[in-house]
Amino acid sequence: MAVGLNDLPVLHPVPGLRLGVACAGIKKPGRRDVVLIETPQDAQCAAVFTRNAFCAAPVTLAKRHLAAAVPRYLLINTGNANAGTGEQGLRDAAACCEAVAAAAGVQAAQVLPFSTGVIGEPLPVSKITAGVPAAFAALSDAAWVDAAHGIMTTDTVAKGASRQVEIDGHSVTVTGIAKGAGMIRPDMATMLAYIATDAAVAPALLQTCLAAAVQSSFNAITIDGDTSTNDACVLIATGCSSLPRLTSAQAPAYAAFARAVQEVCDTLAQAIVRDGEGATKFITVEIEGGADAEECRQVAYAIAHSPLVKTAFFASDPNWGRILAAVGRAGVAGLDVSRIDIYLDEVCIVQGGGRAPAYQEALGQAVMRREEITVRVQLGRGDQAARVWTCDFSYDYVRINAEYRT
Amino acid sequence: MAVGLNDLPVLHPVPGLRLGVACAGIKKPGRRDVVLIETPQDAQCAAVFTRNAFCAAPVTLAKRHLAAAVPRYLLINTGNANAGTGEQGLRDAAACCEAVAAAAGVQAAQVLPFSTGVIGEPLPVSKITAGVPAAFAALSDAAWVDAAHGIMTTDTVAKGASRQVEIDGHSVTVTGIAKGAGMIRPDMATMLAYIATDAAVAPALLQTCLAAAVQSSFNAITIDGDTSTNDACVLIATGCSSLPRLTSAQAPAYAAFARAVQEVCDTLAQAIVRDGEGATKFITVEIEGGADAEECRQVAYAIAHSPLVKTAFFASDPNWGRILAAVGRAGVAGLDVSRIDIYLDEVCIVQGGGRAPAYQEALGQAVMRREEITVRVQLGRGDQAARVWTCDFSYDYVRINAEYRT
Repeated sequence: MAVGLNDLPVLHPVPGLRLGVACAGIKKPGRRDVVLIETPQDAQCAAVFTRNAFCAAPVTLAKRHLAAAVPRYLLINTGNANAGTGEQGLRDAAACCEAVAAAAGVQAAQVLPFSTGVIGEPLPVSKITAGVPAAFAALSDAAWVDAAHGIMTTDTVAKGASRQVEIDGHSVTVTGIAKGAGMIRPDMATMLAYIATDAAVAPALLQTCLAAAVQSSFNAITIDGDTSTNDACVLIATGCSSLPRLTSAQAPAYAAFARAVQEVCDTLAQAIVRDGEGATKFITVEIEGGADAEECRQVAYAIAHSPLVKTAFFASDPNWGRILAAVGRAGVAGLDVSRIDIYLDEVCIVQGGGRAPAYQEALGQAVMRREEITVRVQLGRGDQAARVWTCDFSYDYVRINAEYRT
Repeated sequence: MAVGLNDLPVLHPVPGLRLGVACAGIKKPGRRDVVLIETPQDAQCAAVFTRNAFCAAPVTLAKRHLAAAVPRYLLINTGNANAGTGEQGLRDAAACCEAVAAAAGVQAAQVLPFSTGVIGEPLPVSKITAGVPAAFAALSDAAWVDAAHGIMTTDTVAKGASRQVEIDGHSVTVTGIAKGAGMIRPDMATMLAYIATDAAVAPALLQTCLAAAVQSSFNAITIDGDTSTNDACVLIATGCSSLPRLTSAQAPAYAAFARAVQEVCDTLAQAIVRDGEGATKFITVEIEGGADAEECRQVAYAIAHSPLVKTAFFASDPNWGRILAAVGRAGVAGLDVSRIDIYLDEVCIVQGGGRAPAYQEALGQAVMRREEITVRVQLGRGDQAARVWTCDFSYDYVRINAEYRT
């Protein structure tokens, strides 16, 4: 069940960019499991990848290719992560890139590989390469919805976001898709998000824009605290808009563009949490009054990762002692609990480190029955803040992850 | 279901120490929920407590009392943690101590209070004090089994361990009981463990002995990563054994004594994990070849806290990619994955950072079907090691914690 997620919104085509989807039968026959994205000559591409030390072969190879050339194609497969596969995994990822390169008449380094699925199984290269011609044949600038479906694994709904904005009288489009429902606690990126714009943006500025947008969106969500081996987030700028090339972070036009990118990233990151494995609630954790942002993040994640807090949300049980215990174990040095206030939405549950005088169980109960809840903690140590989005922890999380490979 | 836990072993009385249990009706009528422990004059008492910043009122008060006097009584209640209760909680804990002190003719500072149960509810002082006379009337040196039951909350079985050893021709007894099945990732202690010995031990040495024993037992277990607000572990030395007083950590007699304490702590700590909420498997995580012990603990906890790893154990699914991903995200700086080997019991699953050439799914499957499994990771960076005990993550964990207060 996805919390508060409706059907995909309109995903505006991004001039210059085409997508194609194929069924390669990697894990199940007839499932869309290969996605090809084609960027025009002179497009720029920024990317961030997982910091997991066991990063997957496609992540390693994509970084190498990005350093060597400007990408023309992105090849994405689901059903197999090609992670924990050593040297063979690198050769397999390279073989897939070569198949795309040969079909398109470009160099292999101009193709970026991405994989998601089970870790530790050899990549079925021949199935993927056999699907490549169909993906080429399907290339279209209108295939965003197909592509959003083509990158799903345990996701229950496809995820996309799109903005069209006027900047200095020029229309600019930002459209993105993402997947991910488990092994989600991104570190610099989340598993497979692809965002494209027709704005022309200088390469370094495009990377700056992506890094900033990711920091407060994909890097501020957690489902289970498990950072994936395959996380990747890509921002492509086709340059087909009539808006003059963006080259300075100080330009007002850049601010308008960056805001659109941020909105698309926020929507996609939230969508991942709303469709978290087994999720029945969407939880926003806001920490205020910290001495620095890092300690706020530390407290936010202590709450967002606590199985006891997450099962209480699932049960709609205002068992706020579990939130208090999580704040207390977060490891903030010199924390003075007598200055701490905790709120569930508008209800103050803890004041000055103890149960708020006006608090009554019925008030907490009323909030906990909601599908979307904000936990707000005031640390009383300074003026820094952090926000993390997460979901609850249900029977279905256990079922999905106990059954995943069967 | 408790994994590999049988009925309580014989719990040898500890000369000089008496225990009494009463039903005070704190949460449910007729349930043993108040335990009184009486130590003889001149006994020594060492204790370690939770480091959770939101430590409970009884923890704060017990620390104050320990600093002011040598304890004669320990008063333990279940059903209410008296945590997150502010100044009123301190007054309530003090009132309980005063009731015991008045009945026994000692000072209130000679009584240590301990509470476990729901966080954030006011302590029902009058119920507890009303139960005190019955606890006094029941005092006996043979009541260890009763006391082990009297401190249970969501535990499904009572937990105890006992050793009788000959040291230099003198018999020495070490007996302990513990409780705890959720909110378990102790930091300096675990929720309610009481260990007593008839050896005479100098106070500082007794604290050294307890701290050392706790480090590799209670402080090396995790069920859900949530450190309780009420953790406490107490070691009482009655001094009634004929063994001369232990005063030096270098003495061979101390080594023999410390070994018995360690064995009792190990058995109790394991029992807590074996009876972890919803546990169906008992997992030992051993990390070897680390540059220092801290990074080994970091990797061990990354594995032991991963919901994906824990649900895979529940499903008996050799989905070792999840273990590999947890190692990779543990945050060890400069980790060279090409030097990492991973074993499930005797089966090598990862060699040099990739799937071991000889590994076959059937081999992993055979191990995963076992009730007790050791995950061993060789980091290839040095000669340091760490070991953590944990359990799997089942539907029942969610059920127990979604229903806990209802």
